[in-house]
Amino acid sequence: MTFQQKLDDIVSKNNSLVCVGLDSDISKIPEHTKKEKYPQFSFNKAIIDATHDVVCAYKPNSAFYEAFGAAGITELKMTCDYLHQSYPEIPIILDAKRADIGSTNEGYASYAFDYLGVDAITLHPYLGREALQPFFDRKDKGCIILCKTSNPGAGEFQDLKTGGKPLYQVVAQKVTNEWNINGNCMLVVGAPYPEELAIVRRIVGDMTLLVPGIGTQGGDIEKAVKAGINSTGAGMIINASRSIIFASSGSDYVKQARSETVRLRAAINTHRGSGDT
Amino acid sequence: MTFQQKLDDIVSKNNSLVCVGLDSDISKIPEHTKKEKYPQFSFNKAIIDATHDVVCAYKPNSAFYEAFGAAGITELKMTCDYLHQSYPEIPIILDAKRADIGSTNEGYASYAFDYLGVDAITLHPYLGREALQPFFDRKDKGCIILCKTSNPGAGEFQDLKTGGKPLYQVVAQKVTNEWNINGNCMLVVGAPYPEELAIVRRIVGDMTLLVPGIGTQGGDIEKAVKAGINSTGAGMIINASRSIIFASSGSDYVKQARSETVRLRAAINTHRGSGDT
Repeated sequence: MTFQQKLDDIVSKNNSLVCVGLDSDISKIPEHTKKEKYPQFSFNKAIIDATHDVVCAYKPNSAFYEAFGAAGITELKMTCDYLHQSYPEIPIILDAKRADIGSTNEGYASYAFDYLGVDAITLHPYLGREALQPFFDRKDKGCIILCKTSNPGAGEFQDLKTGGKPLYQVVAQKVTNEWNINGNCMLVVGAPYPEELAIVRRIVGDMTLLVPGIGTQGGDIEKAVKAGINSTGAGMIINASRSIIFASSGSDYVKQARSETVRLRAAINTHRGSGDT
Repeated sequence: MTFQQKLDDIVSKNNSLVCVGLDSDISKIPEHTKKEKYPQFSFNKAIIDATHDVVCAYKPNSAFYEAFGAAGITELKMTCDYLHQSYPEIPIILDAKRADIGSTNEGYASYAFDYLGVDAITLHPYLGREALQPFFDRKDKGCIILCKTSNPGAGEFQDLKTGGKPLYQVVAQKVTNEWNINGNCMLVVGAPYPEELAIVRRIVGDMTLLVPGIGTQGGDIEKAVKAGINSTGAGMIINASRSIIFASSGSDYVKQARSETVRLRAAINTHRGSGDT
């Protein structure tokens, strides 16, 4: 089963385009959870148990685990293992923003797909298609290329005009027309840039887009969904991290995380025009 | 002491611009070393002990350790700890090619500078200056931005013309003129592209350049040194990985790694025009 098939099934089952970003910054998790032996894993497990029936994916960002070295990587692996065991139908996207030269990328592909066993990974485009081949060759895995990122300074390079078009559009065109031989490529386009999101949608057809930047980063849900939805009423993985997992810093954080996920799912589905909102 | 100062001292002491890339792919290390409890660390320690007086830096690539998850990261940390303990005067460059949005980059900076304790890290430019600020803020650490990479497909984006110039030149100009506020920015320019290396040298003044792609990747030493050397006869960190560490797959690998490092140092110094060759 490919990442896209797994995603389609859970989008349908949970009627959700919401991806919960497991950016489990240890300085922000509730005090009583910090005291556990595996605080990031314990926190993630609680968030996952409270939201598994209202999401389409989980997206841990590797940086929040790597910060603690081998111990952090162990907690990330425990999180992935827990998902495989308890909720194997939910895809995991490793937000790792990797890209090296070709032979070296085999190591990163092993980290993501063999060691952690995730379903998709985020990738930088700067080294070009040839370098990313070891990721593309994993035909059942998703390769999600950075196109227009959600940060305020994203435009510094991504909006530079080349051949009359901004660079992010060239990335979208190349990935769609030249890189996506195995049908496993997708793009990252940030919710704070709905105009660019609409342009990318026109370039890529029905390709799935990972859309971060909702919530704390200020992206507008209605504008993002209207700009990014594809012809099937889906094709978006809309990620919220801090606004869900840190919705409360108190002992009710699990309940508040679920409430915020349900609220976001409903808000998205209103504009998506699908059934159950 | 800054990364640049540490580098300048060892370049002078060891009369060397050679950086040994610790890309310790476990499938390629000698059979008897594979059987050790910590094979990557044991291999690295042997290479380091044999070359420490003829190098200017070591550059482990994180991918070769991440491939084995927490266990691999542990061996990478053991390698860094060994260098800190035994050869504290030699800078360590973590080749990690990271870059995420700003708040997330704090996690990667912690991984590199606090957990591993390395002196510099390689970074992707695609998200722009604003995103990389957590790295730049570590004023004593080196931030080495990808400019023109050594892979065959590097030009797909890096050579695209924007404002009449290839993108890699725009990266070089921005890093030199706008990003390098704390004086800790450097660039990656691959040895297989000596013409581009010469152009970047003209743009950046005496800024230090990390130059991979010598050896197995086919970069020509004379062309690279003549194109990349700065006005002080230095300003280059010339990396070789496989051609040194896998110079032999037999029990003489330590001896062969040293021979190859000494040979490369001499070849570089011939064209560099400095004293002892």
